[in-house]
Amino acid sequence: MNIIPAQVGAPLDEVDTPALIVDLDAFEHNVRSMATFARSAGVRLRPHAKTHKCPTIALRQIAAGAVGQCCQKVGEAEALVRGGVRDVLVSNEVVGMAKLRRLAALGAEATIGLCFDAVEQVEAASRAATEFGVTIGGLVEIEVGMQRCGVAPGTPASDLARRIADAPGLEFRGLQAYHGTAQHLAGVEARERAIASAADAVRETLAAISGAGLECGIVAGAGTGTFRIEGESGLWNELQSGSYVFMDTEYARIGGAGSERYTEFQHSLFVLSTVMSVPMRERAIVDAGLKSYSAEKGLPWVHGRDDVEVVGVSDEHGKLKLGPRAAPLGLGDKVLLIPGHCDPTVNLHDWYVAVRQGRVEALWPITARGASS
Amino acid sequence: MNIIPAQVGAPLDEVDTPALIVDLDAFEHNVRSMATFARSAGVRLRPHAKTHKCPTIALRQIAAGAVGQCCQKVGEAEALVRGGVRDVLVSNEVVGMAKLRRLAALGAEATIGLCFDAVEQVEAASRAATEFGVTIGGLVEIEVGMQRCGVAPGTPASDLARRIADAPGLEFRGLQAYHGTAQHLAGVEARERAIASAADAVRETLAAISGAGLECGIVAGAGTGTFRIEGESGLWNELQSGSYVFMDTEYARIGGAGSERYTEFQHSLFVLSTVMSVPMRERAIVDAGLKSYSAEKGLPWVHGRDDVEVVGVSDEHGKLKLGPRAAPLGLGDKVLLIPGHCDPTVNLHDWYVAVRQGRVEALWPITARGASS
Repeated sequence: MNIIPAQVGAPLDEVDTPALIVDLDAFEHNVRSMATFARSAGVRLRPHAKTHKCPTIALRQIAAGAVGQCCQKVGEAEALVRGGVRDVLVSNEVVGMAKLRRLAALGAEATIGLCFDAVEQVEAASRAATEFGVTIGGLVEIEVGMQRCGVAPGTPASDLARRIADAPGLEFRGLQAYHGTAQHLAGVEARERAIASAADAVRETLAAISGAGLECGIVAGAGTGTFRIEGESGLWNELQSGSYVFMDTEYARIGGAGSERYTEFQHSLFVLSTVMSVPMRERAIVDAGLKSYSAEKGLPWVHGRDDVEVVGVSDEHGKLKLGPRAAPLGLGDKVLLIPGHCDPTVNLHDWYVAVRQGRVEALWPITARGASS
Repeated sequence: MNIIPAQVGAPLDEVDTPALIVDLDAFEHNVRSMATFARSAGVRLRPHAKTHKCPTIALRQIAAGAVGQCCQKVGEAEALVRGGVRDVLVSNEVVGMAKLRRLAALGAEATIGLCFDAVEQVEAASRAATEFGVTIGGLVEIEVGMQRCGVAPGTPASDLARRIADAPGLEFRGLQAYHGTAQHLAGVEARERAIASAADAVRETLAAISGAGLECGIVAGAGTGTFRIEGESGLWNELQSGSYVFMDTEYARIGGAGSERYTEFQHSLFVLSTVMSVPMRERAIVDAGLKSYSAEKGLPWVHGRDDVEVVGVSDEHGKLKLGPRAAPLGLGDKVLLIPGHCDPTVNLHDWYVAVRQGRVEALWPITARGASS
């Protein structure tokens, strides 16, 4: 457990480091932009809470027009419902009666949904829902190109949909058609090709489900890398983007030529660090490393300093290289780092320090931090 | 916050997943092995708590012969002292009066040490120690090849040692000479070359310190990759190895030809996961991803299953590929993963589930999880 890193009203410079900072102006811009897109495209927005893990942020997304939240884990769903969210989809499979009972218990307070890609999962969830006297909505997850979870499109999917529709305590609500790898392809054209192929899988499955006499209310999927493509496809009607609230260097990098699409979101998430050692003019060491941001998708960027680069990282250190004409950094100077991958970075922290124009405005607990079970 | 993943007495198979498992037999073997080496080499062992972040483990290392603990952050030192550890070295620089006051406050209960590589840090720590009426031990960190923190060897180091010795509330205790990058060089010969060069820097500095009329009680450093080299050098007298208690795939991989040195430590740390989707015979998906283990040093290995490989990882999923003759995996099957990098993996969890021969024997809270400030 970490100490609370700041006091409301304090200037950014007084925040203890390392600290996870949310720039409220940029954050609110991002929340508004995605909500506006969804409204104009005529689709529902159900942002992914695996990014922020925080009911306070979820409620702001919902106030801006989102229909609820999705998440990956039962523990995240618990944190969301405890925090006042009343419509939660676990956009993932859940295996094990203990977890399914925890999920079913939430059904007394909130609309709960879950994804399936196997009959055994359907039977177990039906048992849990029946025990608790609740209804759990079911989406069939189909394989659309990611080669992770999901049944094959077409008849295998409609067969599973029928099992859900017939299972006591469950209600068939639609399809989960998320192409995770497409989110991270460099260049818009590559992403468009991937989603076009996913759309074929969705069409085939919709036809099979219709042929089975079932109604498919929801076609869910999309992320920050592709949301416009699914949103304007006429097929998907519920978007699950998550990273757009914060952005990270990986999403910024993959924009690619001709992709002005990413400029509509601003970097709103930072790790504030302090210079703790300056062994020589061109090298400064900050007090934030692998335990303050994830690095598996690349090193962080230094915010607002094009002449300073993160060139190395260890557990609790970041090594900065200053360019030949860079203004020097001194002991105690604060440096804002833009994480390479926002979701696992957030999962390292207990608090968001919400800042507006250089002043701490709020502290938001990250109540689903570590809630991977 | 995650739920408590297990009950004492339960079989491993009933532990909720993802969960961080410590195999007690392997763990105790590792604790004993390193303590035995230090004793036989005639050097002190001060294991690094940045690896385990847990006073329960620290106290076991101390019971086996360690003189105390080292750590990287004040928050870790707080957790250790709260948990009963009475000798803690922060093997790192600390900048900022708020942090230095927190550290000085611990000095009433424990022997506290700290590293320095700048005069300003010495002056600030002296002020904090004086305010609290305690003595903080000071080590001068010297650059020995890692190019991170540290002053240059020789006179710059002895000049700083003199400043520490003369500062009220501080006591000069010795040198911090840790070569972090050497730990991870593939092959023993490369590591020996790196430490030989670090030894030159230590010798030069010892001469300068002696020339300045100061006594250098401690020469500290070493890690799991090089501890034998420093331990048998006749120069270093305090070893700071951390990862040896757990091991990870990165330390296992760098052993290199002729390096039987790594077989003396066993993998004792695992992430227990559950198969949650089996879309096809050769692919199984487990419920543990980037939020349950760090991946910046490579994907985890599957424990005890040479025919199953982790081939992909996302936030909450691990993708396993089964070899052509592998026994199939089914929904609900449990899989033990060996993390690529133990320290940041531990930092993702709230509890160790300590297991002996397949049965839960204890639950140890990771009280310094997230304590990066």
